Amino acid sequence: MVAAPEKPTSATTISAFGRARSTVTGSPLSPDEVGRMNAYWRACCYLILGMIYLKENPLLREPLTADQLKPRLLGHWGSSPGQSFTYIHLNRVIKKYDLDVLFLSGPGHGAPGVLAPLYLEGVYSEVYPEISENVEGLQRFFKQFSFPGGIGSHCTPETPGSVHEGGELGYSVSHAFGTVLDRPDAIAAVMVGDGESETGPLATSWHSNKFLNPITDGAVLPILHLNGYKINNPTILSRIPHDDLEALFRGYGYTPYFVEGSDPETMHQAMAATLDRCVTEIRAIQQEARSTGVARFAHWPMIVLRTPKGWTSPGEIDGKKMEGSWRSHQVPVKDAKTNPAHLELLEAWLRSYKPEELFDENGAFLRDLKALAPEGTRRMGANPAANGGLLCQNLLMPDFRGYGVEVIKPAQSIAENTRPLGRFLRDIMADNMTNFRVFGPDENTSNKLDAVYEVSKKTWLAEYLPEDADGGELAADGRVMEMLSEHTLEGWLEGYLLTGRHGFFATYESFVHVIDSMVGQHAKWIEKCHETNWRAPIPSLNLLITSTVWRQDHNGFTHQDPGFLDVVCNKSAEVTRIYLPPDANSLLSVADHCLQSKDYVNVIVADKQMHLQFMDMDSAVLHCTKGLGIWDWASNDLGSEPDLVMASAGDIPTQEALAATAMLREEFPELKIRFINVVDLFKLQPDTEHPHGLSDRDFDSLFTLDKPIIFNFHGYPWLIHRLAYRRTNHVNMHVRGYKEKGNINTPLELAIRNNIDRFSLAIDAIDRIPHLRVAGAHAKEKFLNQQIECRNYAYTYGVDREDIVDWRWPY
Amino acid sequence: MVAAPEKPTSATTISAFGRARSTVTGSPLSPDEVGRMNAYWRACCYLILGMIYLKENPLLREPLTADQLKPRLLGHWGSSPGQSFTYIHLNRVIKKYDLDVLFLSGPGHGAPGVLAPLYLEGVYSEVYPEISENVEGLQRFFKQFSFPGGIGSHCTPETPGSVHEGGELGYSVSHAFGTVLDRPDAIAAVMVGDGESETGPLATSWHSNKFLNPITDGAVLPILHLNGYKINNPTILSRIPHDDLEALFRGYGYTPYFVEGSDPETMHQAMAATLDRCVTEIRAIQQEARSTGVARFAHWPMIVLRTPKGWTSPGEIDGKKMEGSWRSHQVPVKDAKTNPAHLELLEAWLRSYKPEELFDENGAFLRDLKALAPEGTRRMGANPAANGGLLCQNLLMPDFRGYGVEVIKPAQSIAENTRPLGRFLRDIMADNMTNFRVFGPDENTSNKLDAVYEVSKKTWLAEYLPEDADGGELAADGRVMEMLSEHTLEGWLEGYLLTGRHGFFATYESFVHVIDSMVGQHAKWIEKCHETNWRAPIPSLNLLITSTVWRQDHNGFTHQDPGFLDVVCNKSAEVTRIYLPPDANSLLSVADHCLQSKDYVNVIVADKQMHLQFMDMDSAVLHCTKGLGIWDWASNDLGSEPDLVMASAGDIPTQEALAATAMLREEFPELKIRFINVVDLFKLQPDTEHPHGLSDRDFDSLFTLDKPIIFNFHGYPWLIHRLAYRRTNHVNMHVRGYKEKGNINTPLELAIRNNIDRFSLAIDAIDRIPHLRVAGAHAKEKFLNQQIECRNYAYTYGVDREDIVDWRWPY
Repeated sequence: MVAAPEKPTSATTISAFGRARSTVTGSPLSPDEVGRMNAYWRACCYLILGMIYLKENPLLREPLTADQLKPRLLGHWGSSPGQSFTYIHLNRVIKKYDLDVLFLSGPGHGAPGVLAPLYLEGVYSEVYPEISENVEGLQRFFKQFSFPGGIGSHCTPETPGSVHEGGELGYSVSHAFGTVLDRPDAIAAVMVGDGESETGPLATSWHSNKFLNPITDGAVLPILHLNGYKINNPTILSRIPHDDLEALFRGYGYTPYFVEGSDPETMHQAMAATLDRCVTEIRAIQQEARSTGVARFAHWPMIVLRTPKGWTSPGEIDGKKMEGSWRSHQVPVKDAKTNPAHLELLEAWLRSYKPEELFDENGAFLRDLKALAPEGTRRMGANPAANGGLLCQNLLMPDFRGYGVEVIKPAQSIAENTRPLGRFLRDIMADNMTNFRVFGPDENTSNKLDAVYEVSKKTWLAEYLPEDADGGELAADGRVMEMLSEHTLEGWLEGYLLTGRHGFFATYESFVHVIDSMVGQHAKWIEKCHETNWRAPIPSLNLLITSTVWRQDHNGFTHQDPGFLDVVCNKSAEVTRIYLPPDANSLLSVADHCLQSKDYVNVIVADKQMHLQFMDMDSAVLHCTKGLGIWDWASNDLGSEPDLVMASAGDIPTQEALAATAMLREEFPELKIRFINVVDLFKLQPDTEHPHGLSDRDFDSLFTLDKPIIFNFHGYPWLIHRLAYRRTNHVNMHVRGYKEKGNINTPLELAIRNNIDRFSLAIDAIDRIPHLRVAGAHAKEKFLNQQIECRNYAYTYGVDREDIVDWRWPY
Repeated sequence: MVAAPEKPTSATTISAFGRARSTVTGSPLSPDEVGRMNAYWRACCYLILGMIYLKENPLLREPLTADQLKPRLLGHWGSSPGQSFTYIHLNRVIKKYDLDVLFLSGPGHGAPGVLAPLYLEGVYSEVYPEISENVEGLQRFFKQFSFPGGIGSHCTPETPGSVHEGGELGYSVSHAFGTVLDRPDAIAAVMVGDGESETGPLATSWHSNKFLNPITDGAVLPILHLNGYKINNPTILSRIPHDDLEALFRGYGYTPYFVEGSDPETMHQAMAATLDRCVTEIRAIQQEARSTGVARFAHWPMIVLRTPKGWTSPGEIDGKKMEGSWRSHQVPVKDAKTNPAHLELLEAWLRSYKPEELFDENGAFLRDLKALAPEGTRRMGANPAANGGLLCQNLLMPDFRGYGVEVIKPAQSIAENTRPLGRFLRDIMADNMTNFRVFGPDENTSNKLDAVYEVSKKTWLAEYLPEDADGGELAADGRVMEMLSEHTLEGWLEGYLLTGRHGFFATYESFVHVIDSMVGQHAKWIEKCHETNWRAPIPSLNLLITSTVWRQDHNGFTHQDPGFLDVVCNKSAEVTRIYLPPDANSLLSVADHCLQSKDYVNVIVADKQMHLQFMDMDSAVLHCTKGLGIWDWASNDLGSEPDLVMASAGDIPTQEALAATAMLREEFPELKIRFINVVDLFKLQPDTEHPHGLSDRDFDSLFTLDKPIIFNFHGYPWLIHRLAYRRTNHVNMHVRGYKEKGNINTPLELAIRNNIDRFSLAIDAIDRIPHLRVAGAHAKEKFLNQQIECRNYAYTYGVDREDIVDWRWPY
């Protein structure tokens, strides 16, 4: 006889022990169902322990001996039983309601709790046939876990059904929301760790519900696992008053359902009743919106699952509390290899799950129990969305050439570099209205990409006021995602890409460091996907870095940091690409390439303001295809060996380098200058280091073997040295870039402070060309004086001299 | 006749217009007070506009002409009036209750709202005498704002009373909490922008209240400014239902008080009544705790201030809504210079504040109004805590030499490198129990620093369970700050340092990227402080980076990222310091130095596990003082020119480099190898680039002019090239380091995959020493085979060979 679970009290109830207490009461499961589900769960718990401890004797058909244990015990037991428990209950509702569910595991190192049911449902063996459904397979399954050459303790790319590794904590909820955008039938069930809940990115990502459209998007079902402890501490959310906790999630805009306790029987009933309610509510919200056609913000359900840490482990070990304590966070019994009493305890604990009742003679999971899992692609491990590349539809791309600006002669006219891109994105959006989104932290208008709003507005499910019509850019069915959280945007975008869709993220250069770590983790994910033979390539992560350092003179020092490129360069060359298109047409060409690429992190640097235009569309395509090249129109070496190579990467640095070139040519008409522009930064690296790298021969023929090179770079100058230090002529390469000198300046003054301005470059050249060291003294003085005049002008009038601002190539 | 403000309804009330609606009702102000406070506020609003628009004619004593306007209009009007309004009301309660209040301004570019009252209270002119309290000073005050060579639009270091620039959004609340730790009489009033509230770091920092001790810490009074809009969008918190908003802050553990409306008279009464209530509540909480001696978690008060964006600006301009719309976010009237009608409108708007009634003939603020501000250091702009270096007490430091490990002979014994540091920190803690704290994301035990708990436990004001006594490390009066949010920890620490106290932050290497941006912003803050003549140096930010890449073989690829150093290297050389002490004694020496330093960002890299010990204490002190040097005991060049320089930086790389050296010497007894270890990374840079840099002469004498150098580095290898590319012998420098190759490995296998292992290094050496290219073929093959054997062993047994793990220097 199974009694109904108890309701939670509103007072503080932080003990996770005892009969279930839950918001939703009822006993939807028959005693037989409870028994079978509990057996399934026992099998999971057994496998979890097996992964952590055993390298031999997987079904304990012999007595357990110390040498059968792994030499190093890894993986976290703590959250695993709760994760498996949830997984099994999700299986039940998937079957009952025929649901399309992805499972995202947030808690750190808790992969065993997911790997166990993945193996039991048969998916694991389908993907990895050597991990077969028998004793031998089980042994390999156990041994490979956290074993050299094996798999990790997170839900790594090797894990079927995973789109969220969670090695770094904090992104599970934003990832989950990303996966269900534009997948109206999908549900992302995301297990949120109470440890990771303390991170900033997780804390704000709960607000993702204001951006979820109940008609065209799917649903996210967060299950906050109040497991109680981190490594050595309690978690905050597990130790605040029940009223505060409930208020917090109501405040975030959810309807929280509590399931709390440890007694398996009542907990099964409570979880089943709660999941039934959640699914019913999700369907009701969707049904209401879809039948009326009115998409409104909804208080979607979420679950707070409070269970003891290390649920089902021994209550005490050596007189110290184990289950329900931080001690069960990682590996509860650490010395079983050397302590016979603990070996015995471990064996007894393993046997307490009664493996002999769960697996048949061959070591296969009993058919009757396996039948509790859904079938085919309804199994969460086999959900095709988790291998998004398989589902990916290529973008329908208009011809980017049609969006270019007219450039009759190089460096004679100006244009906003990003505005044509906005129109290109608009039309891509129009042609791909279910699998392409644009992301940005409240800056797409500021970044001159606002043309996209002509076809799709900003997603907004929160309150709408009459005056919003003024701006006209908010809509429940908008496809432009704007929130002032780079973390959440990046998380949504990653979830969207990982499930096979396409995106474009435009953000401020100085603050993209906020997501250094996230982008690094995504690059690592892609890199590891290449090591599996079953993950299909996914659309690239496309980041436009704009409002760049050279136009942050007015916002000041805090807004000046081009260092994201240095972070990206540390990631695998197989994954990373960096482009610095100097004008509007080259930006279009680069963006077109990036949007059609797969499995890269593409970083595009281009400022949003008015800039000089260098290339007509044909030249831009040619130049971007090569990645770098000599600009003949700006060079006068005519194929002979030059006296100087002037090189540039980036919009403003290119303008200044050209101006310096012109000044030098005016002063020294005999001087032979070769002008090189670099769009694809990795061209500078040897081809042995990066697939885009130039061969030494090509590099040498461009940059000469021994002539001075002045390289004017958008970012921190040493990045160029880091890429090019192996090149023959590196010793003559003099790089200018941002060197952390700035405050409230004019653009030119900021350039001067960092020596990327035309005057500094011309002076650099004179200093480095042997025959000008004396002959150039007069010109050098002249340039210095001009530089001083420019600074004085800026300080007096607050703006730069017009002849500097409106400079044109004079030849 | 002033009526009481209206109570907020519990339904959605998102309009910010009309008579005040507030949780606390009452009319504490006399009509005269209302009038004078409103006049003070008008003066602020006038100054805000003056800063944004005017370079001449500051008091409009002549008709406004286009040429008196600034050429470039910067700064954000939107949040400024509300910030000044709050500032003035804080002034009232400071005087009434004699409070010690710091003001932190969160909203972006809203400095005018703070600068205005700073000028009016006289502080600004005291700090900057040329910005005098008369017409001329006012003109300079206006002109310098966001003008080249002037001050920025955030509360930059140049701003008296500021400890929070806020150029990057999200850290206002954590900074505020940091400032009041151990300052029991202090209140940090923090104005939180509704835009920044969307960021992750801000969203989790509300939980800081679980770490505030009402007996020994001060109070934080957050004022969430629901201003309604970001650049072009509404903000999330301004558009969720009132019930959700209230629940959210109750859920975060606060008692929220709402003040909503636009009508000045009733808003003054509502704000005054609310602040009276908040101060009373803060005092009651403190009184209760301090009289009983029992520190409990309290639901501290916070204020939600909902006012129209751009409060008091024209309601419409050209028929488009201005006040209360995103249009008033930045500069409402952009074209007054060229549009005569808008010039007229601007002049009328400016005059609407009646400057002639606020400033005397000389242009000084009327004495009667100025008297509303507190006096002396009670003025928030003059609070000495905001210039924390002035208040800073040097740490009482025990002699670090007493904590060392015994090293009788180099490279013969092993020890945990961080454990002695933990004991050192423990005793520093014991001697400095009111101005030193240790910070870490739940890892101080894992990082072997748990000795600190012997004198001070983990701060914890949330619920406490009987079983917590088990761990025994939680206490309301603990001084070890642990929360699983690097953002919040870093924010607390920065607030603590900026107010003149000391701290130590230990964290995981791979996830320190989470705070790349924060650390960069702090470095920028310190750099800019050097440009003021009145800010005293503050204690350095000390970061211990541990659980490093070379011991993350078991956690896998996501946990392997030594790239934080690359980010730090981009910041100013005046501020940044990086140390890689290879053993326990050198770590103590480095930590001692860092803890006593000022105005630096010190990054110390040291793993927490058992490592080979190289130096006794005297050698360690000598070596760390030099920063790098030849280890004679590991070298056999005996002062002559070596055949090879083997160099290392970091614990594991040093061990492997030594092992390679021993292997080479065994194979080739004639070979002269010089062994150099680098602790202070910036020694590698030229002295022209970094104050720690070696002169070329010294560098050349150490690293030779032309001999092969094998450099085994802890981090990404190219960082060494970036630092040393200008050195004479750079061309012969071959650097090994982490190159993004890893998965689940053993330590040695991870080293091998990245070629920092002894075998790879020995092979590298053979390849680079001309006379060994042929003669070394046999040895090379032997090393290759040994490498393969090691890998096979690891794959078979899951651990490394003992002779590798337990390697000792054989000479």
